[in-house]
Amino acid sequence: MNYGLKSIETRKKKNIISVRPNVDFKTRGDLSIYYTPGVAAVSKKIAENPKSVFDLTIKRNSVAIVSDGSAVLGLGNIGPGAALPVMEGKALLFSHFAGIDAWPICLATQDTDDIVKTVENIAPVFGGINLEDIAAPRCFEIERRLQNLGIPVMHDDQHGTAAVVLAGLINALQVVGKKIEDVKIVISGAGAAGTAVAKLILGYSLGRTRIIMIDSVGAICFDRSDLSIPKKELLEMTQNTSCGDLESITKEADVFIGVSAPRILSAEMVKRMSPRAIVFALANPIPEIDPAAARVAGAEVVATGRSDYPNQINNVLAFPGIWRGALDVGATAITQGMILAAAEAIAKTVVQPTAEKIVPPVLDRQTAAAVAAAVARVAKSEGVVR
Amino acid sequence: MNYGLKSIETRKKKNIISVRPNVDFKTRGDLSIYYTPGVAAVSKKIAENPKSVFDLTIKRNSVAIVSDGSAVLGLGNIGPGAALPVMEGKALLFSHFAGIDAWPICLATQDTDDIVKTVENIAPVFGGINLEDIAAPRCFEIERRLQNLGIPVMHDDQHGTAAVVLAGLINALQVVGKKIEDVKIVISGAGAAGTAVAKLILGYSLGRTRIIMIDSVGAICFDRSDLSIPKKELLEMTQNTSCGDLESITKEADVFIGVSAPRILSAEMVKRMSPRAIVFALANPIPEIDPAAARVAGAEVVATGRSDYPNQINNVLAFPGIWRGALDVGATAITQGMILAAAEAIAKTVVQPTAEKIVPPVLDRQTAAAVAAAVARVAKSEGVVR
Repeated sequence: MNYGLKSIETRKKKNIISVRPNVDFKTRGDLSIYYTPGVAAVSKKIAENPKSVFDLTIKRNSVAIVSDGSAVLGLGNIGPGAALPVMEGKALLFSHFAGIDAWPICLATQDTDDIVKTVENIAPVFGGINLEDIAAPRCFEIERRLQNLGIPVMHDDQHGTAAVVLAGLINALQVVGKKIEDVKIVISGAGAAGTAVAKLILGYSLGRTRIIMIDSVGAICFDRSDLSIPKKELLEMTQNTSCGDLESITKEADVFIGVSAPRILSAEMVKRMSPRAIVFALANPIPEIDPAAARVAGAEVVATGRSDYPNQINNVLAFPGIWRGALDVGATAITQGMILAAAEAIAKTVVQPTAEKIVPPVLDRQTAAAVAAAVARVAKSEGVVR
Repeated sequence: MNYGLKSIETRKKKNIISVRPNVDFKTRGDLSIYYTPGVAAVSKKIAENPKSVFDLTIKRNSVAIVSDGSAVLGLGNIGPGAALPVMEGKALLFSHFAGIDAWPICLATQDTDDIVKTVENIAPVFGGINLEDIAAPRCFEIERRLQNLGIPVMHDDQHGTAAVVLAGLINALQVVGKKIEDVKIVISGAGAAGTAVAKLILGYSLGRTRIIMIDSVGAICFDRSDLSIPKKELLEMTQNTSCGDLESITKEADVFIGVSAPRILSAEMVKRMSPRAIVFALANPIPEIDPAAARVAGAEVVATGRSDYPNQINNVLAFPGIWRGALDVGATAITQGMILAAAEAIAKTVVQPTAEKIVPPVLDRQTAAAVAAAVARVAKSEGVVR
């Protein structure tokens, strides 16, 4: 089936999301209750006690999906208008999986200061800010500078992706009988996703996992003089001494995690990985290696981002539950502890992990509920709540 | 009934609006159509042809309800959080009367440049910008500076109010058998609403109506040396030579339009107006004069903003239809011609105007449809469409 054509046809006919009344509206009395004069009492109450905005308005359940259109899917910098259909789809998933009122905010600017200021200005309506498809390294600074808004601000391409990758990795390691602290992991792609994945794995293993990051130049190691500040920070974290290209670096690796480009991992490279190798080829729509070829080459567990192969690593397993949990307890931030809890909760939903099933099916709504409960618990225990 | 209490109780229990899926979402195929990979084709199409965003996304039917919380109802400058329940109510009316997807944007800034910049930045998602409850004179500059966005930008407190007031006036004049070009009209209140009402009446009568504006100081006349720029412009328009206070100015007036303060118009003043006088006492919730008292004092037609008296002058008669019509034809602006068409359409829906019925009932959905048709027609004839 041509999903693209179907997607265009559907959207020509109707919008996939809509703002709807949540109450019956029939009589003059309804007008007086929901609008004037009744609403004045609600406004007065909030004016007297600003925090009550969370008890009396949509702020308690609303998330802004904010993008500048600079890194949309695999399409790159296509701008805010072209990013809008993606954000609409995201809003649909927020509603379907978590009952959250999410609204797309596509920005006519790609200037960091401008984006930060704009998000600060529109924040009063929202209970959370989900940053989406914003290019690295800009995305790191924007997320960091928005952490004092009093509501959670999360860049899903980083933390949502990292949560699902870690969940899959936890179960994959169980399948192949290896421990997170013993394995050598190669991460291809040092952008938003790769960086967050590395940080989360190191957070989970308390820094004991050996991780080698690779960008378009090669391994991020101490010999490199061309590293940006975020990549220097990656080097600090990974303390990686081995330099070289993908071919040399993947030798004897236990795990390959690709969040990079189509078909860059050859069957030969997979053959030279350690026995019982794990390959996550997550580039979309064309993975770093054909999953079937990876299996033939000896990889025991293979995952992709695609819905037409087993083990689909998809953010939808994480972000609805993370946001549901954060909103439910009035979290003021989404911490690494909460993301780790989300990853473990996703992993746990798979009762008996196998090579063909390291993550739950993407459409299983139970996942979001389990993730929400775990995230809410940690938010409270860490005290990052209103 | 205590509408305020009921309003608070309702909102404690649930949000009055919600973002909902507009499509069935059940299978993996749905995920592939509405989100990835299918959505990529939609994004590509828009990237190639930016205008197609109006054919393929919610932009074709979405309006941002933008407020800085500086002039909310009669409550004044209560800030963005306290303004949110009002904007939610407004969004409910947009959906109920016009099927428009309206989303509240309450801003954490009251700086004019900042507001303009923020609205420009979030514009890509919206088919229109409805400015709401922004204090004068700031509201005039903000609306003017946003006129080149390529989508309509309308300050409802000005133009929505003016449309309904003119509609009521047209029918009231018919009831008392007077002509718009012969009457002397006193408008009490020279803020956003009063200014727009004066401009629209003069537009309708081709400048032939005698209008005297009154602010807290007195009549806006050539003797005044304390006038702000917007009020100087009002003086230019009205060319008013008669100075004085409300009491002297209302003498022999045919029409009093109050968009000002509670109980400032006395029965004595109404008695000294011309025979068959028209009194619009629109201050909310307490009118400039008790409508019953105005009738006793000799006013033949009396209107208020309240739902518990005849002739309720309420914006809801205008803005849903104005926006529906503007979105239906892809208008790039909302012109005075479109507002005049809206006023006449509202007036026409009252087949046989009487002293007790100069405007249609607020809950009649036919009004919005009639207004939309008239506004769409004028937008096309003026060529202000994409």
